Amino acid sequence: MTEEVALADIGMVGLGVMGANLARNLADHGHVVAVHDRDRERVEAVAGEGEAFMGAPDLAALVASLARPRRIVILVPAGEAVDAVLSDLAPLLEQGDIVIDGGNSRWRETERRERAYAERGLHLVGMGVSGGAEGARRGPALMPGGSVEAWQALRPSLEAIAARTEAGPCVTHVGPGGAGHFVKMVHNGIEYADMQLIAEVYDLLRRALGCSANEAADHFAAWNDGPLESFLIELTARILRVTEGGRPLIDQVLDRAGQKGTGRWTVMEAVERGVAIPTIAAALDARVLSSQKEERVQAASVLAGPPEPPLFPPTKERLGALEQALLAGKLCAYAQGLALIGRASREQDWGIDAAELARIWGGGCIIRARLLGEVRAAYAEEPPVNLLLAPAIAEQMRGALPHLRQVVAEGAARGLPLPALSASLAYYDAYRSPELPQNLIQAQRDAFGGHTYQRRDDPSGPPVHSAW
Amino acid sequence: MTEEVALADIGMVGLGVMGANLARNLADHGHVVAVHDRDRERVEAVAGEGEAFMGAPDLAALVASLARPRRIVILVPAGEAVDAVLSDLAPLLEQGDIVIDGGNSRWRETERRERAYAERGLHLVGMGVSGGAEGARRGPALMPGGSVEAWQALRPSLEAIAARTEAGPCVTHVGPGGAGHFVKMVHNGIEYADMQLIAEVYDLLRRALGCSANEAADHFAAWNDGPLESFLIELTARILRVTEGGRPLIDQVLDRAGQKGTGRWTVMEAVERGVAIPTIAAALDARVLSSQKEERVQAASVLAGPPEPPLFPPTKERLGALEQALLAGKLCAYAQGLALIGRASREQDWGIDAAELARIWGGGCIIRARLLGEVRAAYAEEPPVNLLLAPAIAEQMRGALPHLRQVVAEGAARGLPLPALSASLAYYDAYRSPELPQNLIQAQRDAFGGHTYQRRDDPSGPPVHSAW
Repeated sequence: MTEEVALADIGMVGLGVMGANLARNLADHGHVVAVHDRDRERVEAVAGEGEAFMGAPDLAALVASLARPRRIVILVPAGEAVDAVLSDLAPLLEQGDIVIDGGNSRWRETERRERAYAERGLHLVGMGVSGGAEGARRGPALMPGGSVEAWQALRPSLEAIAARTEAGPCVTHVGPGGAGHFVKMVHNGIEYADMQLIAEVYDLLRRALGCSANEAADHFAAWNDGPLESFLIELTARILRVTEGGRPLIDQVLDRAGQKGTGRWTVMEAVERGVAIPTIAAALDARVLSSQKEERVQAASVLAGPPEPPLFPPTKERLGALEQALLAGKLCAYAQGLALIGRASREQDWGIDAAELARIWGGGCIIRARLLGEVRAAYAEEPPVNLLLAPAIAEQMRGALPHLRQVVAEGAARGLPLPALSASLAYYDAYRSPELPQNLIQAQRDAFGGHTYQRRDDPSGPPVHSAW
Repeated sequence: MTEEVALADIGMVGLGVMGANLARNLADHGHVVAVHDRDRERVEAVAGEGEAFMGAPDLAALVASLARPRRIVILVPAGEAVDAVLSDLAPLLEQGDIVIDGGNSRWRETERRERAYAERGLHLVGMGVSGGAEGARRGPALMPGGSVEAWQALRPSLEAIAARTEAGPCVTHVGPGGAGHFVKMVHNGIEYADMQLIAEVYDLLRRALGCSANEAADHFAAWNDGPLESFLIELTARILRVTEGGRPLIDQVLDRAGQKGTGRWTVMEAVERGVAIPTIAAALDARVLSSQKEERVQAASVLAGPPEPPLFPPTKERLGALEQALLAGKLCAYAQGLALIGRASREQDWGIDAAELARIWGGGCIIRARLLGEVRAAYAEEPPVNLLLAPAIAEQMRGALPHLRQVVAEGAARGLPLPALSASLAYYDAYRSPELPQNLIQAQRDAFGGHTYQRRDDPSGPPVHSAW
């Protein structure tokens, strides 16, 4: 008589904050979770939290403890660690088993790994997970790619642990192959832009309007009751109220921001594919410049700024202008990110549904925002070539643009750097210009390099050369 | 008795405009040039131009006709064509022979090819060539990388055919490996920025000041007598005077500019290395948006612009402001490009001399400009961390900045897209800010992701986490 051994429903490899919290989330939703980490203490800690967890000392034990087809989530640092776990796991698995890479892997790596797994009859699903530690614990937004077959096997569990909005669980099958990781990468690019735009408006509040941190918090809190309502705006208000010894803690935080992985990759993908995402690129550059703190301190004594102008009074009109400028910048960042996803989806034949992305980004993830409901509606009706061309979005931009113009002009005059806001404005104005001065660039290229050009009166005709 | 056969001094493979002109340039300077192209007609055409040319029907004949150590320049399209020629040539060559790739190859490819050649005892030199067709014919700027040994063997010939300024021939040994192609790539990135900045000022002249093409030409011509004196400004004035049927030909050129290769690569390199080059990136994006002509025409009917304001009168003050704004943007583009080269030089251990680059860019190449003399001086004295910090350059920026501020503010208000000018301003203002609002971004990252942050009162201390 063999003893009946209860098998676990799902495995988790990597018990850092994200992995451990995702395991707890799975347990909350009725899963028995086999957990493993190279660090034995982490395994014991999580396994000790309750009967829903089965600690596994190694991968073989983890695999042996799982019901089939096995479903194993790995949450280890992107790069070599993922390859190491995947190659250690592969020989332990059987046809039809599914491994989910929940880290921020580069999408082409995911496709390479998926192909290697497919050759063994295994499924590899690259899945974006957004929401930070709290999201992983209480409900993240999940962006799985990979095969339809794997999606069907994972769907009930993923829908159970994902964040929920009125529009359903914040998970969808993004598309085949690396589509999930690609979309998560762009999500992070938009997150960079969102955060930079907020930082620029915060800078204006403090340095142009003379607000205290607490007053700035009040304004962000007020904006969180309007069209800007979002996790990041709410978080900003909360952050700005935190004090240390009676003084704002924010003023003790060093202004040197890191940038790596997904933010960089988003810009590189855009450059490679020939998609303009200047708001997102400006956010990346702003972090780069922030990290050059020593150089900036040195530069401050060498490079002149304009004479210090008097502060603007924080009138309702002026605060409204900042709110609208931020809204316009945000919409430009969405438009750019979605344009990049649209291009990639066409080029890779992923069939990504932008309305679904806006829906799942509506809850759980870092960029969740009321505005995404309108983005969803814009794509649900008749997908526009560019988000800005959707009638309801164009209408919002119409109202917001005069304020964005004013804010950019004032920042320029005052010497306050507004790279993302001004890049958004330039993007909007270039995109809506039927005629641009690039005709001069074409003429120059033809003049010095014989590159030829096309004529306005025959735009699809043969390229011509002139003796300039 | 064997017959004495005169051997050629140097070989040229690829007789497109650049290759043929470079061959003619070599012949002008006393070289007998063996020429080959897959297109037999091209070979016959060049060979028929005089006794200085020896047509070679194939690579074997070309190699056989050369004095040793052989020196062969290849000018074929970057990519597979280069690999094809190199692998066909290799077995025909002997120890110590030198092949120079004069195309716009990607620098890492050049290093790979150089290693493969070195294993056979052959030299591969990646050399940037700038100046377009006319430069190749009359004197280009040459940016060879590769080994010192190869440089010594090539130096007399390269110095003979390069452009010359008061500071000598426009060629230098840039550095080992792919340094030459890297520097040429960044040169082209700066060229993108130069051209975009000119295009933005041209747009302002036409649309904000109401200038005719001919009046705009007058202004560019006048600026060419001042600090902006340069090939591209002079060329712009010339282009704007060209007419067709009595009307400016520029107005018949379609505003859809191409971007590829070196421009894209420059931005990707900067992103990879974490160097901010927003003016150059904006120039790239501007070309991307220009190429979306159909979308722009559609957008123009949907997206609102500001009410059309009255034209500015083209006063001396206003024209002076445009000149100074262009100067400031140009200096930012140089600063960014040189910062990228400096970073790469340190990371790759290339030992690139920025003063030498500014010297050789002073003649022959597309970005040649009076201002490069000042850049050279800035690096010759004591190389600054960033070009903008050199005293003489900082002084110019001090004078130019109020005008750049005014121009960016007015462009924002009028709805004219000024991506490169506004990116330049944001770069300057961020770079000279000892405090930036990225402290908020760090606090946000710590709050949602536990990313930790550093404190202002302990900037090199351990990262800390707060309960926000």
